[in-house]
Amino acid sequence: MTIARVSKISPLDPTAAEPFYRQIYSRFRGAIASGVLKPGDRIPSARALTKELGLARGTIEAAYSLLAAEGYIQARGQAGTIVRPDLKPQTPLPAPIPQSRSGIDAVSFRPDTILPFQMGLPALDVFPRKIWARLSARCARAMQPSDMVHPSVRGLPELRAQIAAYLQVSRGISCSPSQIFVTSGYRHSIALIAQSLLKAGDRVWLENPGYPPTREILGHMNIATVAVPVDQDGMIVSDGMKLVPRARAAVITPAHQSPLSVSLSLPRRLALLDWAARNNAWIIEDDYDGEYRYVSRPLPALKSLDRDGRVLYSGTFSKVLFPSLRLAYLVVPEAQAERFEQITEALASGSPELTQAIVTAFMTEGHFARHIQRMRKLYAERRRATEAGLESVLGKHMRIDSQPGGMHLILRPPGRRSDRRLVAQMREAGLYAEALTDWATGDDRASALLVGFTNIDSQRSAETLGKRILKLI
Amino acid sequence: MTIARVSKISPLDPTAAEPFYRQIYSRFRGAIASGVLKPGDRIPSARALTKELGLARGTIEAAYSLLAAEGYIQARGQAGTIVRPDLKPQTPLPAPIPQSRSGIDAVSFRPDTILPFQMGLPALDVFPRKIWARLSARCARAMQPSDMVHPSVRGLPELRAQIAAYLQVSRGISCSPSQIFVTSGYRHSIALIAQSLLKAGDRVWLENPGYPPTREILGHMNIATVAVPVDQDGMIVSDGMKLVPRARAAVITPAHQSPLSVSLSLPRRLALLDWAARNNAWIIEDDYDGEYRYVSRPLPALKSLDRDGRVLYSGTFSKVLFPSLRLAYLVVPEAQAERFEQITEALASGSPELTQAIVTAFMTEGHFARHIQRMRKLYAERRRATEAGLESVLGKHMRIDSQPGGMHLILRPPGRRSDRRLVAQMREAGLYAEALTDWATGDDRASALLVGFTNIDSQRSAETLGKRILKLI
Repeated sequence: MTIARVSKISPLDPTAAEPFYRQIYSRFRGAIASGVLKPGDRIPSARALTKELGLARGTIEAAYSLLAAEGYIQARGQAGTIVRPDLKPQTPLPAPIPQSRSGIDAVSFRPDTILPFQMGLPALDVFPRKIWARLSARCARAMQPSDMVHPSVRGLPELRAQIAAYLQVSRGISCSPSQIFVTSGYRHSIALIAQSLLKAGDRVWLENPGYPPTREILGHMNIATVAVPVDQDGMIVSDGMKLVPRARAAVITPAHQSPLSVSLSLPRRLALLDWAARNNAWIIEDDYDGEYRYVSRPLPALKSLDRDGRVLYSGTFSKVLFPSLRLAYLVVPEAQAERFEQITEALASGSPELTQAIVTAFMTEGHFARHIQRMRKLYAERRRATEAGLESVLGKHMRIDSQPGGMHLILRPPGRRSDRRLVAQMREAGLYAEALTDWATGDDRASALLVGFTNIDSQRSAETLGKRILKLI
Repeated sequence: MTIARVSKISPLDPTAAEPFYRQIYSRFRGAIASGVLKPGDRIPSARALTKELGLARGTIEAAYSLLAAEGYIQARGQAGTIVRPDLKPQTPLPAPIPQSRSGIDAVSFRPDTILPFQMGLPALDVFPRKIWARLSARCARAMQPSDMVHPSVRGLPELRAQIAAYLQVSRGISCSPSQIFVTSGYRHSIALIAQSLLKAGDRVWLENPGYPPTREILGHMNIATVAVPVDQDGMIVSDGMKLVPRARAAVITPAHQSPLSVSLSLPRRLALLDWAARNNAWIIEDDYDGEYRYVSRPLPALKSLDRDGRVLYSGTFSKVLFPSLRLAYLVVPEAQAERFEQITEALASGSPELTQAIVTAFMTEGHFARHIQRMRKLYAERRRATEAGLESVLGKHMRIDSQPGGMHLILRPPGRRSDRRLVAQMREAGLYAEALTDWATGDDRASALLVGFTNIDSQRSAETLGKRILKLI
């Protein structure tokens, strides 16, 4: 196996827009995907290839670095460079990363292209990218030396002011911008809360089933989690009180329980607030998609009922704008703002000025409110279309839970069929789903598929996809 | 005190480019700065002002939110909104935040305008902002749905490939992109190392004097720090071995010790590596400005001598590009890459796709290497000019340490004069400096001023600034 075979497949094109290093990268990638190069095969040294192709050494090295970064090849020092032996050629390779921008790692849990039914993503096809690009260009052009120094680790003051105004109008939360801390995502928000208010050994109620990363993050910080069951009214607060009455905190998704999408009932909201006030415990409200309710107006946030300063409100721009923006925020009780400021100054690095400035402009000019309204309408329609499409094809085999909000559907497979197995089969077939049992702990876990509907554009698409699932059942 | 007095000062201008909320904000800010509004004064309710000015309620609220975010006013619920009682009108207010972009909090330790002698900043006046804005606009326009999903928490593969190639050429480090983790800054990098490799109770050598945030971050993570003295050859490694031979790690700035700017000698580099190998300890190399050496070529990084996989290399774009970018990176030993990947996946949120894509383009197109070369020349010149200017004015009163590299000078005041007091006086006079005693621990701390020279554009400027210091001595 020499590069000769590879380079014969398609010669480099000096007139192409794609730079040479990308062409070389694509060549190797293609050769690996098609099996021309197999796991363990040795590839030419950068030096040899430089000579063969008559290009600059840096060009070849850039291509090899990229292939290595993505896990295709492996440098073995004196022993040369080889195609990674652990690459599995029988599984389809992910789509190539587009030129000069890249997706995410092939090795990651998250696929690097958007798969049908992928969860947790907004409808990326209809995002107002032109407006966004215009504002981005404007913000970049306006950058002055004073915008290049260390930004406030708490977030840009103007962005915090915009967030405070938005939360007042949309989520019923009264807070001052000084209570707001801009973070780089939900994980960062949770870590910041744990660093500020919790200590190793503390116990925290989590919903069961519930969003797996919360358990993971707290576990890494040596905080013990207590699984509190969820029914049609949300977390069974009285069960939490029976299990561990002196827990230091509860993490909860009151608007649409993640993943069951039920809302926390008012009596339970009040019981939870009362418990927190009596025990000096903290309630961490994860309002990841509170805006997306389709049967009535979005419910006010639990935080809006917080009279005793026990609720920390966690919001994110990942669902209402897009995830690669890496911007989220926390609202902390006024009495805790100073503590959070100290911890943030010490441990956080802050978010880039540019992305914060773009979001500020997007909000200030009204695009943000308009976008959320449009998405609420669109998601109601896509939810209906996806439900109808899947129902028509899979209705005999699965029950589709009807829910008032959220960004995914729950498909209940027949009998005791393992959701994990079906998810694995779907992934092999290029379809996304998550297994409800992976979101739960304990013995008696329900089996179900969680499928995102936000990127399914029509009932016909849903039917076509449903037929692909049908083949696997 | 009513708004009438404020609004009479300068009426709102409907033809101005500045939106109304900014005009109202500036009005109040000016009124507070000039003493028309005093700490504790009540200001009109948003409702009353809305009526008076005939504007939308949201406009007034945006202005008030911004004033509150910046600490000028305080909402007191039913008791109305007041000018913050703790505002000190006798100290000059920071310059107003430029429209639609904002600096950092007035309350922060870091000033929100760039003060003369400010430390740790690159020469922001000569940054190629036009090229940067062009690349930013291009990256924003090129954004596809696949660029909007969660980016790899380890960093964009193409950026990691560029960093690996740069480190090879410029810092003598051979590493694969899979060893690189993109972070949001030095604090994030240190926290990530501590989370991955250290545990509460571990002991870590730090340089004394040394960069204060390192001690602060590790302290928050319950890691004990050991102050190891520094002389003209850098950290006295043998002292560390005597003090705490079984320390788990050493944080060190080998290129230009922070803040004394000396280089770690080769015998000490080898002794440190040997100690780490024998004790399975970690060396954390903070190479914050390794590029900026003026008397000879930059020294290769300590990491380039690491044969046993004990060195973690911490680099940052804050000094070679600019701080508000919030991008830094870590190179971890190959054997630790998997551990870091797990921790990163669990605890980190990742950096925005856009800023990473811009830096990737900046590097790929050669601007990065050119910029560093230009800055190395410029800083050599600014260092010389600043030294000469200060020497001519302050030479009789202070000794200026001559150093081979770095981004600041060290001024040694006469006798036992307190550096802290002089720093406080300089800050009052609108000049920046840091006190060496704040960077050290222990009883016998040397007194000196640390002053940045990167934003001093000529010898004449340095002389003028020197005269302002002279008045304070």
